[in-house]
Amino acid sequence: VGPRLPRPRDRGDANVVGDLVTRAREGDPRAVARLISLVEDESPLLREVTAALAPHTGGARIVGITGAPGVGKSTSTSALVGELRKAGQRVGVLAVDPSSPFSGGALLGDRVRMQDHALDREVYIRSMASRGHLGGLAWSTPQAIRVLDAAGCDIVLIETVGVGQSEVEVAGLADTTLVLLAPGMGDGIQAAKAGILEIGDVYVINKADRDGADTLRRELRTMLALAERGEDDWRPPIVKTVASKNDGLDDVVTEIDRHHAWLESSGELAVRRTRRARDEIEAIALTALRARWGDVHGRSELDDLAAQVAAGESDPYAAAETLLAEL
Amino acid sequence: VGPRLPRPRDRGDANVVGDLVTRAREGDPRAVARLISLVEDESPLLREVTAALAPHTGGARIVGITGAPGVGKSTSTSALVGELRKAGQRVGVLAVDPSSPFSGGALLGDRVRMQDHALDREVYIRSMASRGHLGGLAWSTPQAIRVLDAAGCDIVLIETVGVGQSEVEVAGLADTTLVLLAPGMGDGIQAAKAGILEIGDVYVINKADRDGADTLRRELRTMLALAERGEDDWRPPIVKTVASKNDGLDDVVTEIDRHHAWLESSGELAVRRTRRARDEIEAIALTALRARWGDVHGRSELDDLAAQVAAGESDPYAAAETLLAEL
Repeated sequence: VGPRLPRPRDRGDANVVGDLVTRAREGDPRAVARLISLVEDESPLLREVTAALAPHTGGARIVGITGAPGVGKSTSTSALVGELRKAGQRVGVLAVDPSSPFSGGALLGDRVRMQDHALDREVYIRSMASRGHLGGLAWSTPQAIRVLDAAGCDIVLIETVGVGQSEVEVAGLADTTLVLLAPGMGDGIQAAKAGILEIGDVYVINKADRDGADTLRRELRTMLALAERGEDDWRPPIVKTVASKNDGLDDVVTEIDRHHAWLESSGELAVRRTRRARDEIEAIALTALRARWGDVHGRSELDDLAAQVAAGESDPYAAAETLLAEL
Repeated sequence: VGPRLPRPRDRGDANVVGDLVTRAREGDPRAVARLISLVEDESPLLREVTAALAPHTGGARIVGITGAPGVGKSTSTSALVGELRKAGQRVGVLAVDPSSPFSGGALLGDRVRMQDHALDREVYIRSMASRGHLGGLAWSTPQAIRVLDAAGCDIVLIETVGVGQSEVEVAGLADTTLVLLAPGMGDGIQAAKAGILEIGDVYVINKADRDGADTLRRELRTMLALAERGEDDWRPPIVKTVASKNDGLDDVVTEIDRHHAWLESSGELAVRRTRRARDEIEAIALTALRARWGDVHGRSELDDLAAQVAAGESDPYAAAETLLAEL
């Protein structure tokens, strides 16, 4: 499931979109919400929206927050928002929750823990449904990030439940990825899985007032030390927090800032953002191609070829060539 | 990383490949090993190989075996091979191990636990390196399955470590997916993660002589009962085994057979195999397109577009259109 390239529309639509973008940039939360809905619902205005947003993007820092269920992600996100607001930052939050019962985008402020910030006009909070049953990010997540970025957010937090591949995907979308852990979560590092050790830019041990926090930190430090890193590479720090008591979040903000400074000075920021744009372009192009392959002679060309391969009448390389020859 | 479409070759190559396929079908393990190496190494003969294999494919049942580290996957796979050999079946095993130190395909019989079967000419065992650091399956896994299928295996077992997305991918490749669990693995079902409950056709509780096996079965049964299933849908059974004592494997084989009978009678087998072929064709076509996008004017067209999008000079939809217009 994903967007087909929508048809171009007339001038009137462009004005509607331009007006929404102007209002969003002035801080109108309803305009922000409407723009996110337009990208999420694959509106025919989608193309105008992304075109109108483009010149205003690139200013926000994108921070992913991931970790296994139970580590306190929502509490940490909420506490982090509070800390960032103290510093006067405009903050966007995208909460991507695979277990969300909402099939589309949910209402602003629907996350209970986020109610603290629901009336703050400098905080945009949005829940997004996940794409599939295995918890991947919705295809529209990058577009929703663009909306919040263009709306003048200084920082956009993307909170995902660490299930399936979503933690890897969020690392692909973010400039900085926070990986949350907590003591007493089964096997600690083992439970966190190998993959998570490769995506964190900052590790946060939440619930650090509990037994086992120091052991977890020691284990984590040992695991991280095993990774090969060059002289100038970023070395992920480990921060301890008790998010429910707003404890340690200042250190988290300090490390996010420090990582961002490294991203800029090392040139890695441009590398990550270009890679992200490339993935996004390719995904859109592939979706358009899929739509085309599915629409030849009113029946799916690709389905016909797949049936031939499944029956042993053709092989996948020959079928791929047929498909490409039709472009 | 993946295959470009290799150039067509002359007749001599076709004869070499045809000869290898003939010998593989006659049961020559060296011919099987050579064919897998050809697909794994992206040999220029890759296209001839897949074309020569195609008419002989479709006979093997493809069974995926997945589960978290420590549940006893290798022991179970080895015991299952023994059980299938008792029934006179020709068995292929692909062990996809993300932690494997081998960068390419490893030698036949390199898995210690599989040594029992290393001298059995009716068993082909192959370790394959995984694709990336997060443990996905190698792109060549479907091609290696084709080799074993065409070589006359009655059943091909694909063993993967349940890390990252590999368990989801193996379900996409298999007719029947076995999910292994064991008591005492942290939080049991919680540790098994939500995703695993959606991909299993047969659940195996290994180490069932340990404390907690019955609790685990009860929990699992409750979780599985929550899934909505229609009247005629498959209801995944739960089997208990002690693989290290060869206990319960006959029940696993019975359930694999029962699931296969259901796949055939319900028409789901054709659906799954056609879907698999479609994914494979699409992946090959996309890889060829990527190579094309990366090769315009000696510099990557896609990289240029991505840099423009990252700089806010273009948007991803406009960039995708430019890319597609060049095809």
